[in-house]
Amino acid sequence: MSDLARTARQRDADDPLASRRALFVLDDGVYLDGNSLGALPRSVPGRVEDVVRRQWGALRIRSWDESGWWTAPERIGDRIAPLVGAAAGQIVVGDSTSVNVLKALVGAVRMADDARDEIVVDATTFPTDGYIAESAARLTGRTLRPVRPDEVPAALSGRTAAVLLNHVDYRSGRLHDLPSLTAAVHAAGAIAVWDLCHSAGALPVGLDEHGVDLAVGCTYKYLNGGPGSPAYLYVRSGLQDRFDSPLPGWNSHAEPFGMREAYEPAAGALRGRVGTPDILSMLALEAALEVWDGVSIDAVRAKSLALTDFFLECVRAYVPEGRVESLTPVRHEERGSQVALRCAPDAGDVMKRLIGRGIVGDFRRPDVLRFGFTPLYVGFADVERAARVLAEELR
Amino acid sequence: MSDLARTARQRDADDPLASRRALFVLDDGVYLDGNSLGALPRSVPGRVEDVVRRQWGALRIRSWDESGWWTAPERIGDRIAPLVGAAAGQIVVGDSTSVNVLKALVGAVRMADDARDEIVVDATTFPTDGYIAESAARLTGRTLRPVRPDEVPAALSGRTAAVLLNHVDYRSGRLHDLPSLTAAVHAAGAIAVWDLCHSAGALPVGLDEHGVDLAVGCTYKYLNGGPGSPAYLYVRSGLQDRFDSPLPGWNSHAEPFGMREAYEPAAGALRGRVGTPDILSMLALEAALEVWDGVSIDAVRAKSLALTDFFLECVRAYVPEGRVESLTPVRHEERGSQVALRCAPDAGDVMKRLIGRGIVGDFRRPDVLRFGFTPLYVGFADVERAARVLAEELR
Repeated sequence: MSDLARTARQRDADDPLASRRALFVLDDGVYLDGNSLGALPRSVPGRVEDVVRRQWGALRIRSWDESGWWTAPERIGDRIAPLVGAAAGQIVVGDSTSVNVLKALVGAVRMADDARDEIVVDATTFPTDGYIAESAARLTGRTLRPVRPDEVPAALSGRTAAVLLNHVDYRSGRLHDLPSLTAAVHAAGAIAVWDLCHSAGALPVGLDEHGVDLAVGCTYKYLNGGPGSPAYLYVRSGLQDRFDSPLPGWNSHAEPFGMREAYEPAAGALRGRVGTPDILSMLALEAALEVWDGVSIDAVRAKSLALTDFFLECVRAYVPEGRVESLTPVRHEERGSQVALRCAPDAGDVMKRLIGRGIVGDFRRPDVLRFGFTPLYVGFADVERAARVLAEELR
Repeated sequence: MSDLARTARQRDADDPLASRRALFVLDDGVYLDGNSLGALPRSVPGRVEDVVRRQWGALRIRSWDESGWWTAPERIGDRIAPLVGAAAGQIVVGDSTSVNVLKALVGAVRMADDARDEIVVDATTFPTDGYIAESAARLTGRTLRPVRPDEVPAALSGRTAAVLLNHVDYRSGRLHDLPSLTAAVHAAGAIAVWDLCHSAGALPVGLDEHGVDLAVGCTYKYLNGGPGSPAYLYVRSGLQDRFDSPLPGWNSHAEPFGMREAYEPAAGALRGRVGTPDILSMLALEAALEVWDGVSIDAVRAKSLALTDFFLECVRAYVPEGRVESLTPVRHEERGSQVALRCAPDAGDVMKRLIGRGIVGDFRRPDVLRFGFTPLYVGFADVERAARVLAEELR
């Protein structure tokens, strides 16, 4: 056994989160793609079966009340809230991330002064955010201004209505400085909208503490909600009365069963709801969130950094010099919970071989191997093994 | 046994669709709320369990390819297509009905001449359609003009960009004349958008035959997809190249995994997709659609009309004169698959008592008892019993 393997074994023994692994369905491989699709929590299958057979099959429409279907979007929003540093009453779950980006951005522009004619967006963003931002700009008669995150402060002006940023870059794993960027957006008098897809569940976000205005995120990565599980929308409580949604569906009405001809928005986070909630997926997510009971997100962050540090250490020790290059920032304050390794020209082929040997990561074109480290179910021995197998494949 | 009960028994014996009932999970009551939430098809629970345990739990991200997750929206759209008279390649499943109404209406306005500045909408519509139509008008700089469906032909003009209509009114059950209204919209040079929530799966729609431009519908009523299951969007093939979505999410990109900075829409129905599809709900729907294998929608329509005719006959025979008033049109060509009975002033209380006796319908404020007749699992004896119990409660 190598020194690094011994170190891994000791760290797993000392890991206060190690027992969480038993809450997930895993095999004997190493799953480093939880930042794409989280592993299945053991609490989910039984709950889904109950939702299908008893709640739908036997109770049918009575379940809208009796099984709490109708209030699921805000109830599950409140369950996510502590994971992203939000007090209750500010998050609703529902729709896809893309749809929530439209709600958030159009809503943000409508909160801003009419004279502000620009939406600033992270030019390196996950593509859908950029496409939807362009649509939001077009629908509100604004101009879209794509800039790199480090250029944001200089791009802000009295023309800026809203800014859409990613907390963690999906490709490089770079963590952006949410507190200082939010402060800069506010100093310019604009509205700050954050995409938390790659940070929620992996590190502290501090939405309330840092005064974020609106935020969106998915639930199928670090929150383990299942494939395409519903996304969420955060609207800061102080702004909810001014939130004017481009999707004012009947679920966001002050009196949804009044069947009123005139629209009157509900108070609070409910205003972010749209149509009938997708119950199967939503209640699967609710069951999946049980794995967070009693978990401190600071402990998750500490382990996440230890895992990525250790992976980089193992890669340095095992992989031939120059064969890969880490795109992931060395400084902890700039690192999310993933490691991206440039591996030209054969990254796609290398990832296929790794997957064939049970080490599951992601290939991102053109030349990136992406490994996600989910602190609730990845351990240090997994990390050492992944680096070792990678090195074998690259030799 | 009364004459009507004997008639019911004979009709059930002669019913070519009677065997379908065994494909659903039902109890010993009478479920007349399938136009709100369809009953659970027996094919669903096992499928959902496989999706959760094997596809998600064991295969994880491999399922995006290996389990056909990625292509589910268009594959399931093609399964719905014959039920609404559409050729393949024109329907995608995903998002809620409300979200699809926004896509359809903004898309429709963008297909129309810029000089056309009005969106005409059914003023008696299910509220969410009206709210979203108002939002679509605001986002595209048009004026919303709500009119009653019978006033639509007179309201059309060179100013009309798009018209949003319901095939069947959710309250009264009135079936609107889709062929002639669509023709009138086209004669005025406008785009016709239909909401099929209360018709798809209950009667022939004939989207292609009648030249409908865009349509939306839910899948949790007559299509039995489960609570809040994803809705669908139809874009006529001849218009797909001009369909310009307000929700151009990455799933609608010509090369979604190219992660391109610039948006380039996919060809065909795929253009109506937005974000990552909600797999659990979507594949539950796919399993639910198996109950339609080998079913002719004309046979469904014939039975639906026979059921509603027979219900009205039983109500006339059993219920004291003047105690209820049918709001449902007498003429078949104006009738959907439900019967709405005005029952003042105690409709809410009456429905509670009916439900307590196993006859499940819906109360719609202020004074309507609404009964939905789902031809795949409601029989004539159910209908006779429902009318008999109603009469007992009203005496």
